Amino acid sequence: METGHALLYLILILGAAKIGGELAERLKQPAVLGELLVGVILGLTPLRHIAEPNQEVVASAAITFVATIGVILLLFEVGLESELAEFLKVGRAAALVAAIGIVLPFVSGYAASFLVSGDYRQALFIGAALTATSIGITTRVLADMRKLNTNEAKIIVGAAVIDDILGLLILAVVLQIIKDGHPDVVAIGKAVMIAFAFLAGALVIGIRYASTLTASAQRLKTRGVLVTISFLFCLTLAFTAESFGLAEIIGAFAAGLILATTGDRVKIQDQIKPVADIFIPVFFVLVGLQVNLRHLIPTEPSGYRVLLLGLVLLVLAILGKLASGLGVAKSGANKLAVGVGMVPRGEVGLIFASIGLREGIIGSDLYAQLILVVFITTLITPPWLKRVFLKMPAGRNTRTGSATPRQ
Amino acid sequence: METGHALLYLILILGAAKIGGELAERLKQPAVLGELLVGVILGLTPLRHIAEPNQEVVASAAITFVATIGVILLLFEVGLESELAEFLKVGRAAALVAAIGIVLPFVSGYAASFLVSGDYRQALFIGAALTATSIGITTRVLADMRKLNTNEAKIIVGAAVIDDILGLLILAVVLQIIKDGHPDVVAIGKAVMIAFAFLAGALVIGIRYASTLTASAQRLKTRGVLVTISFLFCLTLAFTAESFGLAEIIGAFAAGLILATTGDRVKIQDQIKPVADIFIPVFFVLVGLQVNLRHLIPTEPSGYRVLLLGLVLLVLAILGKLASGLGVAKSGANKLAVGVGMVPRGEVGLIFASIGLREGIIGSDLYAQLILVVFITTLITPPWLKRVFLKMPAGRNTRTGSATPRQ
Repeated sequence: METGHALLYLILILGAAKIGGELAERLKQPAVLGELLVGVILGLTPLRHIAEPNQEVVASAAITFVATIGVILLLFEVGLESELAEFLKVGRAAALVAAIGIVLPFVSGYAASFLVSGDYRQALFIGAALTATSIGITTRVLADMRKLNTNEAKIIVGAAVIDDILGLLILAVVLQIIKDGHPDVVAIGKAVMIAFAFLAGALVIGIRYASTLTASAQRLKTRGVLVTISFLFCLTLAFTAESFGLAEIIGAFAAGLILATTGDRVKIQDQIKPVADIFIPVFFVLVGLQVNLRHLIPTEPSGYRVLLLGLVLLVLAILGKLASGLGVAKSGANKLAVGVGMVPRGEVGLIFASIGLREGIIGSDLYAQLILVVFITTLITPPWLKRVFLKMPAGRNTRTGSATPRQ
Repeated sequence: METGHALLYLILILGAAKIGGELAERLKQPAVLGELLVGVILGLTPLRHIAEPNQEVVASAAITFVATIGVILLLFEVGLESELAEFLKVGRAAALVAAIGIVLPFVSGYAASFLVSGDYRQALFIGAALTATSIGITTRVLADMRKLNTNEAKIIVGAAVIDDILGLLILAVVLQIIKDGHPDVVAIGKAVMIAFAFLAGALVIGIRYASTLTASAQRLKTRGVLVTISFLFCLTLAFTAESFGLAEIIGAFAAGLILATTGDRVKIQDQIKPVADIFIPVFFVLVGLQVNLRHLIPTEPSGYRVLLLGLVLLVLAILGKLASGLGVAKSGANKLAVGVGMVPRGEVGLIFASIGLREGIIGSDLYAQLILVVFITTLITPPWLKRVFLKMPAGRNTRTGSATPRQ
């Protein structure tokens, strides 16, 4: 019975994810860190074969599919949580922070990687992988501290959302360039146009007709119609994005942004949440499973070069985002607080890494280095952010906080 | 990209399921009928290859796994909805109805099948497949008519639950006998003991510690912990049942019964519902996909014998359950109403059929006949039940209805 094996793997992976997530949260760390770590540990057991499609093909296909739906649902939820209107208010500062936070890590990551490897395709990808801020981790930390209504928080969240969109666009463009094999202005233009056309087209058409979709869902009689139609909408946009040569997650994110504009947003969030709760951890454990710890312990001279590159990338990743805090300009927000809030790479960085590995753009050594960057930026942010926010003058915090109703 | 195909298949299957379910409900039929029918229709397209594991192995494994989780969640939900205490009140009548409704179809189905095929293994399986009442369809129809608080409804639901448990035990026993190759008293005794030991052991231990499990879930901090732990518990019991040589669904049903005794029952139901809404229809469409319509149109002499057997089984299936209404004895309930309520075979019958096909006990011709029995018993029940209930004296209905608080 082939499904028996897949069932057992799913039980082990999901169980491990819950244990890891729980331990992480008890240590006041984001759950995602724990899920990654148990994945890395499971990677030391025979279970790592699940990540190698040649062995146990049926169980591997089943679990990989569950993980794919997991990452699709993650970006769908991020989209659902993003309120276009809300962050337009801090638009100028957020856009500037996002721009600095993308350009600096991209350029410096590209330069460092190109100097080490001489491979512009790989360098392009590494640069791109350093751009994305983890909206999930930062918002979770800010919410825990009850600081979501401060100016700083709004700028961070706004910039992180812009980062997400631009990061996904950069991913699409970079993948297109890498596929075409040479940095061609026409190819870049084409990639940008395809990405923009898909995202703009999906958003414009989607937002216009989304309410019709959810309203018609309410006229349907079968049970669970809203969650099923939302899920189908998300899968369909993910598949369409893939057909356009973009990443599936871009479509899922667009689907979330679109359904966030409907009156059923909260209902959809509530109902998709249990589904996401089950699927998403499988993705992160599988990401961890693919980390081969041996690549972090160099055994040959070239290994030290990769490890060094990893450490350099880590420093660049932190400095680039810290500098983005300068973008707050005249908004009066605390530059350091915003900069620190932008540091964690989190989910999107991991998605970049796993796509790079899957497409053969980076090897398992660089993959391990990227995971290291994500790990450490994610690990240092929560305590650091807490300290910076607590050091800010309480009066200023309250003032900017109470300014909300006037906006 | 292999997951691309699986994604497309999932979109098509889930989309078709929703359309079929919706059309069925608009024609005042249960949604499950529509899902089966669109499955049968999709089976006429190249999509039927999804049911043949040799082709498109990755996509097929992924979709089959989703369907397996679907049927596991279905039985989990049925277990969650079953209140042990509630139907103990009408216990004697329900037990008698259940007993007649199992013995008559089993014996007559066995006899008819053995006379036609001379194959006692197949006959055993056919007899067993005719025993299970669909609790889902009957309760849905009764709820729609607001008749769930009548004496008749309580007896039907109670008997259907007993049927479910006994039906699953019979399935386990029959599978054990078929595996051992000969009807051996020791083998039967062993099978019954294994089935009872598992179910009794799981229920006794489970009910004793279930509240500890859900209470400790509340102390955990990660998001979605209740739904994930319930899901994991359900998968674990399903896998354990399979390891014991029983069907996965027996474990899932036991998991539902166990968690139904905890204080978190309603919360678990609410949170598992969206997950079930997405997974379950995939199972029914896949069941439909496996129906080969050609087998209902005989092209050779032996085909007519199979078709004739199918029609005989249909008549026996209906008569056996109608006769079970006699079991209401002195409870004063309407015999015809209870009998009609027991007629639909629904989900469990389909599960029997698909297990029989998977294990090679029945061929695709007999599979098609069993699906025919499920189809027609499911199709005729809702309007028939409505008519019988409306014909019952209104006063009696109200009396038995208002009797509830006194119990």
